[in-house]
Amino acid sequence: MYGQSLVITDVRLTPVLVADPPLLNTQGVHQPYTPRLIIELVTAGGVTGIGETYGDGKYLEIARPLAERLIGTAVSDVNRLFTLADETPVDAARVDEAVDVGGLRGVQSADKLRLSVVSGFEVACLDALGKALGLPVHALLGGKVRDAVEYSAYLFYKWAEHPAGRACEPDAGWGAALDPAGIVAQARLFAERHGFGSFKLKGGVFPPNEEIAAIRALARAFPGSPLRLDPNGAWSVATSLRVAAELGDVLEYLEDPALGTPAMARVAAGTSVPLATNMCVTTFDEIPEAFAKGAVRVVLCDHHYWGGLRRTRELAAVCRTFGVSVSMHSNTHLGISLAAMTHVAATVPGLGHACDSHYPWQAEDVLTSRPRFVDGRVTVTDTPGLGVDIDRDRLAALHARWLDDDFRALRERDDAAAMRAADPEWATPAVPRW
Amino acid sequence: MYGQSLVITDVRLTPVLVADPPLLNTQGVHQPYTPRLIIELVTAGGVTGIGETYGDGKYLEIARPLAERLIGTAVSDVNRLFTLADETPVDAARVDEAVDVGGLRGVQSADKLRLSVVSGFEVACLDALGKALGLPVHALLGGKVRDAVEYSAYLFYKWAEHPAGRACEPDAGWGAALDPAGIVAQARLFAERHGFGSFKLKGGVFPPNEEIAAIRALARAFPGSPLRLDPNGAWSVATSLRVAAELGDVLEYLEDPALGTPAMARVAAGTSVPLATNMCVTTFDEIPEAFAKGAVRVVLCDHHYWGGLRRTRELAAVCRTFGVSVSMHSNTHLGISLAAMTHVAATVPGLGHACDSHYPWQAEDVLTSRPRFVDGRVTVTDTPGLGVDIDRDRLAALHARWLDDDFRALRERDDAAAMRAADPEWATPAVPRW
Repeated sequence: MYGQSLVITDVRLTPVLVADPPLLNTQGVHQPYTPRLIIELVTAGGVTGIGETYGDGKYLEIARPLAERLIGTAVSDVNRLFTLADETPVDAARVDEAVDVGGLRGVQSADKLRLSVVSGFEVACLDALGKALGLPVHALLGGKVRDAVEYSAYLFYKWAEHPAGRACEPDAGWGAALDPAGIVAQARLFAERHGFGSFKLKGGVFPPNEEIAAIRALARAFPGSPLRLDPNGAWSVATSLRVAAELGDVLEYLEDPALGTPAMARVAAGTSVPLATNMCVTTFDEIPEAFAKGAVRVVLCDHHYWGGLRRTRELAAVCRTFGVSVSMHSNTHLGISLAAMTHVAATVPGLGHACDSHYPWQAEDVLTSRPRFVDGRVTVTDTPGLGVDIDRDRLAALHARWLDDDFRALRERDDAAAMRAADPEWATPAVPRW
Repeated sequence: MYGQSLVITDVRLTPVLVADPPLLNTQGVHQPYTPRLIIELVTAGGVTGIGETYGDGKYLEIARPLAERLIGTAVSDVNRLFTLADETPVDAARVDEAVDVGGLRGVQSADKLRLSVVSGFEVACLDALGKALGLPVHALLGGKVRDAVEYSAYLFYKWAEHPAGRACEPDAGWGAALDPAGIVAQARLFAERHGFGSFKLKGGVFPPNEEIAAIRALARAFPGSPLRLDPNGAWSVATSLRVAAELGDVLEYLEDPALGTPAMARVAAGTSVPLATNMCVTTFDEIPEAFAKGAVRVVLCDHHYWGGLRRTRELAAVCRTFGVSVSMHSNTHLGISLAAMTHVAATVPGLGHACDSHYPWQAEDVLTSRPRFVDGRVTVTDTPGLGVDIDRDRLAALHARWLDDDFRALRERDDAAAMRAADPEWATPAVPRW
C-alpha cells in the first residue's frame, strides 16, 4: 500500500473555552466563553495535523467515535471521512433539541451535525498531508489563484462588558457600541487595527430604523466602502423590502433579511439589492429550491458545516454553474480555522466579496503565532500544511477552563441564556421580530 | 517557495494516429486512424507526467502555446492551468468550422476547446505530482471509494473492414455487426474477452425498428443485464417516445435520443425511461436550463472536454446536488485516458452506472503495459501517479504515422469524410434523421 507513513495512529480531541466579547445578535448575546474543539491527528510518519470545529456537546459526541474509527486511515483518504461519518450514529434528540443557538446557522439535521464534525477532521487531514508532502494546503486544493484573501470588518452591537457577576476576559479596548456613533467608532478601530476596507454589521438587534441609521453613518464615514447588513432573518418581507429600498444605494448586499427560502425569494423579487445567505442555504439539499426561486445571489459558505475545504470548493462550483456568487460566513473561531478559510478562499476563482471572520474579536488563541490582517487581508502562506502551530501551554490553559466546574454551564453555547444573565425575562424572539 | 522540484521545465507534445476499427455512427464511420495528442511534462525533480487528449489540429493549435506558458509552473498548480488557457487565443474560425466531426460531443465553443486541451495537461500534472509525492492520482482527488471501476461494453454497428483502398490495421477478430445477430455476437465477444456485464449500443445508424430489434436480441441473450441505446440525437421527439415505450422494460437508460435540451425535455416528460446525455449537457453553462427542464437524469461526463479530473468531481457535485446521476462518456482514447477515467471514477461517490469506454476497440497503445478489464472492471491502482508508463518505441511508431504524408488527411478526424470513402454521395444526415 502507498502512504504507510500517512496512516493515522493517534487522534487527540481537546475541547476548549475561548474568551468571547458580549456581541449582540437577534437571539441574545455571546457568552463570555465559547466552546471549540481542537483536533490533532498524528500519523505513522510522526506528523501532526490540526483542525478546529464547534465544541458543544453534540459535536463532541460525534467526534469521539469518529476519532476512534479514523485510526488506520491515511490522511490522504479524505473522501473516506464522509463514509465513516455517515456510519457514526447521531442521537436524534440532539438534532431536534432547542433552536440553533450557535449563531443562526440554518437548518439542523443529523447530516449537518456530522459534516460540522467531519470538517474539523478534514482540515486536520489536509494539514497533516501538506506537512508530510511539503505542500501548503492551498496546493492540495489545486493551488492559490491569489496571494492574499480579503476579509470584511465584522461589526457588532455590543456591551462594554459581560453582565455583572460573569467571569470574563478584558475587552481589548473595544468598548460599547449601541448606536450609530458607537458602530462607526468600532469600524474606525477595525480599520485602524487591521486595515479593513469592507464592513458588515450584525443587525436584528435594534428596530430597523436604528440599524438603517447605523449603515447610513458608516456610509458617511467610509464613503464608497462595501457595506452589508445581516439581521439574521429577523425581519418580515415588508420590512426587508423597506430597508432594501432605503439602503439600496450603499449596500453591497443584504444578508438574510427574512427567514427561509420562500420569504427570501419574495424579498429578492422586490429589490435590486443582492441578497446573501448563510441561513436558507446551508446544505447542498437546500440549493435547488433556493436557486430555482432566485432567492439568493451570494451564498456565504462556512467550511465548518458544509463539510470542509474540498466541499467548499464543490459549493463554489455549484454556485458558479448557476451564476450565484460565493463568499465566506464566520462564527466564533480560532486561528486554525482562519488559516483553513484563507487557504481555500485563495483557490476559489472569482471570489468577488470580502470574507467574513469573527477572528479579530478573539483575544485568545491556541497558536504559537496568530495570523494577522494587513490592509484587511490575510497573506496566503506557502508553508507546508496550514502554516500554523499549536502552542501547547495555551491549548492546555483553554482546555483547563473547559474542565473547570465553574465554567461547565458554558460548554454549550446558548446566546439566549447568556442574555438572561442581563435580562431574566429574555426569550428568543419570535420571527419576524420586526 | 515550496515545491521547486515540482516546477515544469519541459513539455513534450506528440501527436499520434491510432488504429481505429470501422465503427458506425449516425454521422458516418470512424477513420482507419484517429488523431490523439500525448502530453509529457517534465519537472525540475526529474519526474515525467503524462496526459492524453484530442489530437486534431484545432487542439494542437491551443496546446502548443499553452505548453510554452506552462514552463515554470508547478505541477501542483492545476488551478492555474485554467487561467493560462483563458489567456491563450483561440482562432474563432476553428470554433465555428464545420460540425463537430469528432463524435457528436455537443456544443462547440472557444472555452470548450480550451478545456479539451487543459484536461490533457491537468492529467499530466496530476500524474507527475503523484509520482513526485508517491501517491496514486486517486489519492490526489481525496482517495478512492471503490477498488475497481465498472465499465460497459460499447457495442457498435461495424463493417468487417475499412472501405477498400484505405490502409488500416487488422480487425482483431471483431468482424462485421450489421444486424441484431451481429450485435449479439459482438456482445458475446465483449463478455468473453473482458467480462462486461453491461452493454451500450451506439445507435442512430439504422432505422429505429432495427435498433429496437437489436436491443431486444441483447435482452434475450443477456437477461437482466443493464442495456443502453445511444442514437446521438438522431430521432424526433415522437420517435424517441416510441422507442422508449417499446424498450422501457429493458433499458437502463436511453442516451441522447433527440437533439438539444428542449427536445430532450419533451422526451423526458413523456417517458419513465431515464434519459442520459453527453450532447445537451457538455459544459457547466448548459446545466441550469437542462436541470430546470428535467431534461436528463444521467450526465455522462467526459473529463477531456469538461476540463479534467477535478472538474469531473465538480460536475459530480453539481449533479449530486440536483439529484442527477453521473457516469462517464468515452470517445476513441488510449490507456492513459482509461487510467485517468478509472482514478477519478474511483473517487466519485454513488457512481450508479457502468462507465463507457472505447478502449477495447483500440488494438494499439503507447503504453508499456495496457490496463485490463477483468469482469468488466478496471482495478484502481495504488501505484504513484496514473500507474501507466509510456513505451517510447510505440509512441514513436504512432507519431511516425502521424508525420507520414500518406496519412496526412487523417490528422483531422472526419467521420463523414470516412464514410464517403465507401459512399461518395454520403452527407451528414439532417436531424432528426428518423
